[in-house]
Amino acid sequence: MTRKLDELILEAIVTTESEDGSMHVAPMGPQVSVAMDRWLLKPFKSSKTFQNLLRTNRCIVHVVDDALLIAQAVLGKANSFPATFKPDLGFILEDTCHWYALSVSEWDVSQPRALARCNVVDKHIHRPFFGWNRAKHAIVELAILASRVAMLDSSAILLEIDRLKILLEKTGGQREFQAFEMLESYLRSEF
Amino acid sequence: MTRKLDELILEAIVTTESEDGSMHVAPMGPQVSVAMDRWLLKPFKSSKTFQNLLRTNRCIVHVVDDALLIAQAVLGKANSFPATFKPDLGFILEDTCHWYALSVSEWDVSQPRALARCNVVDKHIHRPFFGWNRAKHAIVELAILASRVAMLDSSAILLEIDRLKILLEKTGGQREFQAFEMLESYLRSEF
Repeated sequence: MTRKLDELILEAIVTTESEDGSMHVAPMGPQVSVAMDRWLLKPFKSSKTFQNLLRTNRCIVHVVDDALLIAQAVLGKANSFPATFKPDLGFILEDTCHWYALSVSEWDVSQPRALARCNVVDKHIHRPFFGWNRAKHAIVELAILASRVAMLDSSAILLEIDRLKILLEKTGGQREFQAFEMLESYLRSEF
Repeated sequence: MTRKLDELILEAIVTTESEDGSMHVAPMGPQVSVAMDRWLLKPFKSSKTFQNLLRTNRCIVHVVDDALLIAQAVLGKANSFPATFKPDLGFILEDTCHWYALSVSEWDVSQPRALARCNVVDKHIHRPFFGWNRAKHAIVELAILASRVAMLDSSAILLEIDRLKILLEKTGGQREFQAFEMLESYLRSEF
């Protein structure tokens, strides 16, 4: 599954609905066109997001610029985030920048990572995205590291923490420092 | 000059007006509050941006998500970008996400890097920012590297190119590949 020329991977946060009706929040890296009109989700079949998506065929992808939100989502601490439930769409997180309500049009579940082609059912802009900030980018990298900690060795992780911390200190604000500390503590606890 | 808890460094693109009335485009990393209402610009006194800013006491800072734009701005190839001139504000670049028209309220020119506190005179949202994308973030890092190439040794730069290229290939689209190639060619030509 290759990308087209105008397709990128977006580091975003997705909400799905669990069987008991509660919200499930997880980080996700969908493949999306620059125009935001073609979406391909690639959830691991072992994930809760996949189970919920397969059952309901819908989700809401949130474009966020809040480093603390992505850190909490990666660490599984985001399910109690403030959100609004819209019966026709799903769970919409508060304090995100934009959201896209998606409906699955086509499934391919033949591989460990399922492929779900989606249509945009609705979308909304809450507030402008902050823009490029190296500390926020560093936390995206640290969050991805945290989600893969079991596959990496501790010396590589420590080097990466040191490298990313320089970007944090040069460019971050309070929420970025909080997010970094949360992810760093988790990573160090896993060694 | 330290940052407050809610202040971050934004990687942005600034337009100023040269003495002959033409537009000057440059990358800039202003210190800005999360609410985007407190701005501190830190131009090097050796820069054209500083000269223009000191003379006119105004500029327009653009929040961009286009990797090609930042690459071109860093390489000094952005002065012919499509833009609209508004006499009361300055040069507004097309195809950016948001812009903030700033007016300098206070200068400190005692250090090599001048400090200009600014007020927001006007602002506008053109279109939503794409969101987090690791390839775009990699190009921000490569662009910063390109702006500092004289201070770095070639082996460190080559290692960084290799590291960042992985992010490009995993997550980028056509414009990100173009931007990367442009910056990589420049960096290699400087060795």
